[in-house]
Amino acid sequence: MEVNIPEVVAEIRALFDRYEQALIDKDVDVLDATFWNSPHTIRYAIHENGYGFDEIHAHRVRRPPGPGIKLATRRLVITTLGRDFATVNLEFDMRGRDMPGRQSQTFVRFPDVGWKVVSAHVSVTESSPAY
Amino acid sequence: MEVNIPEVVAEIRALFDRYEQALIDKDVDVLDATFWNSPHTIRYAIHENGYGFDEIHAHRVRRPPGPGIKLATRRLVITTLGRDFATVNLEFDMRGRDMPGRQSQTFVRFPDVGWKVVSAHVSVTESSPAY
Repeated sequence: MEVNIPEVVAEIRALFDRYEQALIDKDVDVLDATFWNSPHTIRYAIHENGYGFDEIHAHRVRRPPGPGIKLATRRLVITTLGRDFATVNLEFDMRGRDMPGRQSQTFVRFPDVGWKVVSAHVSVTESSPAY
Repeated sequence: MEVNIPEVVAEIRALFDRYEQALIDKDVDVLDATFWNSPHTIRYAIHENGYGFDEIHAHRVRRPPGPGIKLATRRLVITTLGRDFATVNLEFDMRGRDMPGRQSQTFVRFPDVGWKVVSAHVSVTESSPAY
């Protein structure tokens, strides 16, 4: 299973960039198109847990417009395995917060509809416990 | 791409159960064996962000023993796509916290080493903003 075939990474990078712009623009059509239209799709967001495409769509619609929480990218890692599977992990500075945010997405390429996010998780790192 | 072939779901469920027990026991060998031994592996935990197997291993070792944060399962969703790809999403009640924790894992079956977690993300849901 070949890791990070350049043209596969480029495909995922383009989808990631399009999705980030759609978050800023609140472009619900693009946000919806990025995710798998299935009851199995899951998106854990900072404040809410969406199970299935319909709940995730409702969260998109409910979200107020305005500036995003992402201030600057700290680290972006795209990992592709073969030609049909990829993960995207982003660590970012958050508006108004000391600790970084994290966004994880799992992409699968479906024979019929192409690349879709099947699982996503966005959260804020918590201050470290005193070990 | 067939969703949730029963024997594939059963394989992932067994790996999930073994991993949860290893967290309780602080069985570093099992924790390590569950994850892909690669610099590409990522584990975002509640308090720390691990990039690559070596950092993730160091986080395992550093973690103090003691009771886990997971009080009870709220919701566990295993989704398999075909025979080589799976996601596990767990929402759980957290010890000493009002809001639920979330744990997401992405499994890939490698030809040589079998099923491994290539990306994981654990966090706490934050209180909802006033929409």
